[in-house]
Amino acid sequence: MKKFALVLSGCGKYDGSEIHESVTAMLAVSKSGHSYQVFAPNMPQHHVVNHLTGEEMPETRNVLVESARIARGDVKDLSTFDVSEYDALLLPGGFGAAKNLSDFAFNGENYTVNNQVKNVIQAVHRAGKPIGAMCIAPMLVADAIQGVELTLGMPCGASDIAEKRGAVHNVTEHGQVVVDEKNKVVTTPCYMLDANIAQVADGAEKLVEELLKLM
Amino acid sequence: MKKFALVLSGCGKYDGSEIHESVTAMLAVSKSGHSYQVFAPNMPQHHVVNHLTGEEMPETRNVLVESARIARGDVKDLSTFDVSEYDALLLPGGFGAAKNLSDFAFNGENYTVNNQVKNVIQAVHRAGKPIGAMCIAPMLVADAIQGVELTLGMPCGASDIAEKRGAVHNVTEHGQVVVDEKNKVVTTPCYMLDANIAQVADGAEKLVEELLKLM
Repeated sequence: MKKFALVLSGCGKYDGSEIHESVTAMLAVSKSGHSYQVFAPNMPQHHVVNHLTGEEMPETRNVLVESARIARGDVKDLSTFDVSEYDALLLPGGFGAAKNLSDFAFNGENYTVNNQVKNVIQAVHRAGKPIGAMCIAPMLVADAIQGVELTLGMPCGASDIAEKRGAVHNVTEHGQVVVDEKNKVVTTPCYMLDANIAQVADGAEKLVEELLKLM
Repeated sequence: MKKFALVLSGCGKYDGSEIHESVTAMLAVSKSGHSYQVFAPNMPQHHVVNHLTGEEMPETRNVLVESARIARGDVKDLSTFDVSEYDALLLPGGFGAAKNLSDFAFNGENYTVNNQVKNVIQAVHRAGKPIGAMCIAPMLVADAIQGVELTLGMPCGASDIAEKRGAVHNVTEHGQVVVDEKNKVVTTPCYMLDANIAQVADGAEKLVEELLKLM
């Protein structure tokens, strides 16, 4: 049985992990007969967004504590991540990847990735283990691994910036994945496209299938 | 295309909707080629629980606003529910069903169901449309529809109380459903058992399949 480490960024598309992507990634791992452990950084969210109105709320929430909602309590502090214990890394999307795990949502082409997250991605890469990234999360990989081949769905502002950072962008449709065999990186667009949840789940299943082939 | 109304109770198993059950229910509807609309009552949560520690937090959150996280913003106030617009009702579980949609978690055998929720269940039932309930949510149906046949997994405190309320309890294993054809009610145990997410998704798929047969 292979062990996947999933890194979440909160709970909810506007200020944390996209919930459907996170859950369908967990489901894809579980359906394939393998196991997952959820991780998240122990840090404040950049902000809290009311998901009904889209407006910022005068609150503070913690990324690790909110990620625990999706993980049903079983989440570990990302600072305790040990690459030798896992066979693959999996990064779901949501604005949390662009607001908490990096500052891409605010700084665009000058974005930086949270050091802890970048170190984890690079450690997994150095260990020759595969990395999967969904939706906007490939932006984290574009910064951490030079010259990676990836997808963000259709050409867009994000894909332009990923290319400036040295990545090679591939256009994809619903449920498609891009496999960078050299770097062992697999990406799928999910809600970067105007998708429904069945299409997102389809992408997650193909992503996990390709990650397993790279182990 | 059939339209399912999903009623959520927040976002997170300890104080709201169980996220995996909610998402796998949405996924099952989407995979079957049908559509869903999420609803939730516009009311404060009973309380907020830190899902990392299990402890209560000194905060207030709103059921409708937090449910919007699972619904990606597309959630309607349950007070606007019109039975003529939907073909089935779907109630995922989580403590939110026992803390926000009812007071079962606190009052046990003397529990009452939130009036708005009870009215919606009874309106759907009177209209001859099917109702699906997962995990602990069958407790809502046990109160709203006299003599309903249902499952809460293995015999437990909840199933004893459901029987005292007039329901007939059936024991189920992972992924199994109980179909009450007379009342058009379908139930599945999900995380009432020590399940994994693939087993929960399996139960959700069978639930949706049986609901479609009852339309």
